[in-house]
Amino acid sequence: MFSTSTYIQRRRELAAKVGSGIVLLLGNDESPMNYADNAYHFRQDSTFLYYFGIDFPGLAALINIDSGQEILFGDDYTIDDIVWMGPQPTMVERASEAGISKVLPSAALSGLLTQAMQRSVPIHFLPPYRPEHLLKLQALLRLHTDTILPKVSVELIRAVVSQREIKSGEELAEIDRAVDLTVDMHVAAMRMARPGMTEAQVAARVYEIARAANSEVSFPIIATINGQTLHNHYHGNVLKSGDLFLLDAGAELPSRYAGDLSSTFPVDPVFTPQQKLIYEMSLEAHQAAIDALAPGVAFREVHLAACRSITDNMKSLGMLKGVTEEIIAAGAHALFLPCGTGHMMGLDVHDMENLGEVWVGYDGAPKSTQFGLKSLRFAKSLRPGHVFTIEPGIYFIPELIDKWRAEKQHQEFINWDEVNKFRAFGGIRNEEDYCMTAEGPRRLGTKVKPKTVAEIESEKNLNMEC
Amino acid sequence: MFSTSTYIQRRRELAAKVGSGIVLLLGNDESPMNYADNAYHFRQDSTFLYYFGIDFPGLAALINIDSGQEILFGDDYTIDDIVWMGPQPTMVERASEAGISKVLPSAALSGLLTQAMQRSVPIHFLPPYRPEHLLKLQALLRLHTDTILPKVSVELIRAVVSQREIKSGEELAEIDRAVDLTVDMHVAAMRMARPGMTEAQVAARVYEIARAANSEVSFPIIATINGQTLHNHYHGNVLKSGDLFLLDAGAELPSRYAGDLSSTFPVDPVFTPQQKLIYEMSLEAHQAAIDALAPGVAFREVHLAACRSITDNMKSLGMLKGVTEEIIAAGAHALFLPCGTGHMMGLDVHDMENLGEVWVGYDGAPKSTQFGLKSLRFAKSLRPGHVFTIEPGIYFIPELIDKWRAEKQHQEFINWDEVNKFRAFGGIRNEEDYCMTAEGPRRLGTKVKPKTVAEIESEKNLNMEC
Repeated sequence: MFSTSTYIQRRRELAAKVGSGIVLLLGNDESPMNYADNAYHFRQDSTFLYYFGIDFPGLAALINIDSGQEILFGDDYTIDDIVWMGPQPTMVERASEAGISKVLPSAALSGLLTQAMQRSVPIHFLPPYRPEHLLKLQALLRLHTDTILPKVSVELIRAVVSQREIKSGEELAEIDRAVDLTVDMHVAAMRMARPGMTEAQVAARVYEIARAANSEVSFPIIATINGQTLHNHYHGNVLKSGDLFLLDAGAELPSRYAGDLSSTFPVDPVFTPQQKLIYEMSLEAHQAAIDALAPGVAFREVHLAACRSITDNMKSLGMLKGVTEEIIAAGAHALFLPCGTGHMMGLDVHDMENLGEVWVGYDGAPKSTQFGLKSLRFAKSLRPGHVFTIEPGIYFIPELIDKWRAEKQHQEFINWDEVNKFRAFGGIRNEEDYCMTAEGPRRLGTKVKPKTVAEIESEKNLNMEC
Repeated sequence: MFSTSTYIQRRRELAAKVGSGIVLLLGNDESPMNYADNAYHFRQDSTFLYYFGIDFPGLAALINIDSGQEILFGDDYTIDDIVWMGPQPTMVERASEAGISKVLPSAALSGLLTQAMQRSVPIHFLPPYRPEHLLKLQALLRLHTDTILPKVSVELIRAVVSQREIKSGEELAEIDRAVDLTVDMHVAAMRMARPGMTEAQVAARVYEIARAANSEVSFPIIATINGQTLHNHYHGNVLKSGDLFLLDAGAELPSRYAGDLSSTFPVDPVFTPQQKLIYEMSLEAHQAAIDALAPGVAFREVHLAACRSITDNMKSLGMLKGVTEEIIAAGAHALFLPCGTGHMMGLDVHDMENLGEVWVGYDGAPKSTQFGLKSLRFAKSLRPGHVFTIEPGIYFIPELIDKWRAEKQHQEFINWDEVNKFRAFGGIRNEEDYCMTAEGPRRLGTKVKPKTVAEIESEKNLNMEC
């Protein structure tokens, strides 16, 4: 937790932005795996953490903007709870650390909300993203689950996004630490990966590094020789000589701030010539995106800079043909880059994704529906305090190639015979984390992840000497 | 997955046991962490796995007992899904492996159930243990969430328990493998734990071993110097010379069969004399429980054998006084053993806990409400094919000691001054997994976990020599 004053100040700003009514913020509950008492590791709601800092299940809070009253709802442990789960701070102690003086039992929340509804006080709440939220809102607001989503408070979403998207110095310091731990995870994977090992062994070691630092991962680890699948969570393959390995993994610190890096490296000590060729093209796209970063520049332009680089290089290989801007306007380049170049990052690895990308990444403007561009999570103008990833990649996805070819999609721009020569290549992604400052972009973390062919081969050879 | 015929046979038996109506079995969905698309690792519902073997989210199945028709509900991947998640078997292919010939889209389930309800066909479903189950049942059965629990099918619960509680040879082979992997996890922890290390480092290494075998843990790892907290998931402490370390951890294989072992060992190379004293008493209780195992014996008697051993030893130390059977009848011994001596194990580490302990462990008979005995999850007569843990422990829980003493509970049996000498001792638990056979108990696994003082000290000294 940060200091109590941080949370008091954040809530004060929130109240001022929303203006009037009651703000209802639900913490998360335990998530059962195969029975109620066998739960996954607890993950608190990030907005609840942002305003209260309390990382514990079963809580909720009300901010009555008109009266200024703030109430935390939750229940103290019984002796049975203590026997099984150990002693815990009292609810009053937890509330005090968040700067809140009033605590009520969970059961009191419903009555207070009913009173407010009877007085027609507006109740602002955020979009539910867990089934438990829907059940709670149904019971608390006496709404059928089907009617809850249309009643979500856009004022509250906009207010929360406007605060959370601008990271403070204390937040940036946490993110720097998360990125440094993430670099350790990636370097370990580069060093250990070799033929005969399994993807699972690499993923397990990457996870161990996060857990040994009393941290978690900010999302399920992607550790695969099939990098062409963007979010591949299968770890059952054996690494073979000639494979490229893609690791996309990030640490989540005890404060829940995230890191998120991607690396692609050969299983062998060196890249093959073909791997080196495509890898360096992916780095050129990466650098093109970084070069485009500046305060006031729309992140959509950063994405398009990466798209142009990839398109030009795919033209040079004979896979694409035509005018670069026309290829990109038509979306034909998305055969190789079917996703966005980056996303915001903070307490969530895709920061605030639960609040809706149209608010987080587009300030309410509509998103594109074009394949590829529709997956760009962040498009708006960069401001100091924004934290985001840079992660263009080059992917050869056999199923997508076959589908587009069969449907004759973009055939004026694509030379299918040349593309087919690379259909078994796989996928490459490099990813780094940046924040925007008034002076320009700053790469986050104090440690630097090996990125160039020379740096990666040197890292792998260090291991071979061990 | 086992062979297709295994699943066909299991469903045939289920239908015969339930007799008539429609059986509705819900698979699990992805569980979101901090936004919908950032999910914990997927855990399928164990009963769905038992009857269909399909370890994939978003499925449901109907068995129409009267017509003999079986239908699997789910949706094939779109090209967008394949780009992000990789190619997958089709629903028809998945159904075929389970021996099911009819597949319908998820959206078709509601209509079929509505038709059945209009014809007053009974719909059998199991107790919901995830919020998503409540939401689905509410929508499918047009019931308010508050009215769902009373409509759960006791016939279905009893039928499922009667099948799942008796493990087949192919199931026992999986559990043996899970236990062996679990032994590896425990031996690694014994060897590595030493002063200056953190609990998190030990837990991380234990987890790595499971993950590197492309497996998971069957429950969140307990790795603590505060073993007196029964389910302690905090890993923030630094190990100090003189600490006892309690590890309770189990592997969950890709087949989802579980292992579950507990070990307690010194952080130093050897036990202190006081640790050795209590540790050997805990082993005596452990052995007393094992000695009581036989087909037809109620597991409640096995638990009581452990209770008697602990009570006698606590009497020998002057902490308890009076007649052993009277102490146990009153529940005073539960100060040191506030939980049960074991639980069933299988596809769940607490097997079928979601179906209700009163059915799984008590055949519908009421559970005790006495502190300690109420936490015994398994009490009924042992039958060949039962798989269960043996895990009595000795715990000194300061909060419980203080509460009982202040409330003058069991003061005729407890010598508080003697108990208080051990209030900072911590807790000890040893746990092994057994199955019952017609010839008697068999310890599961081919590997043997170090258990005696000599075995543990030898394991630790092996490490010191490295």
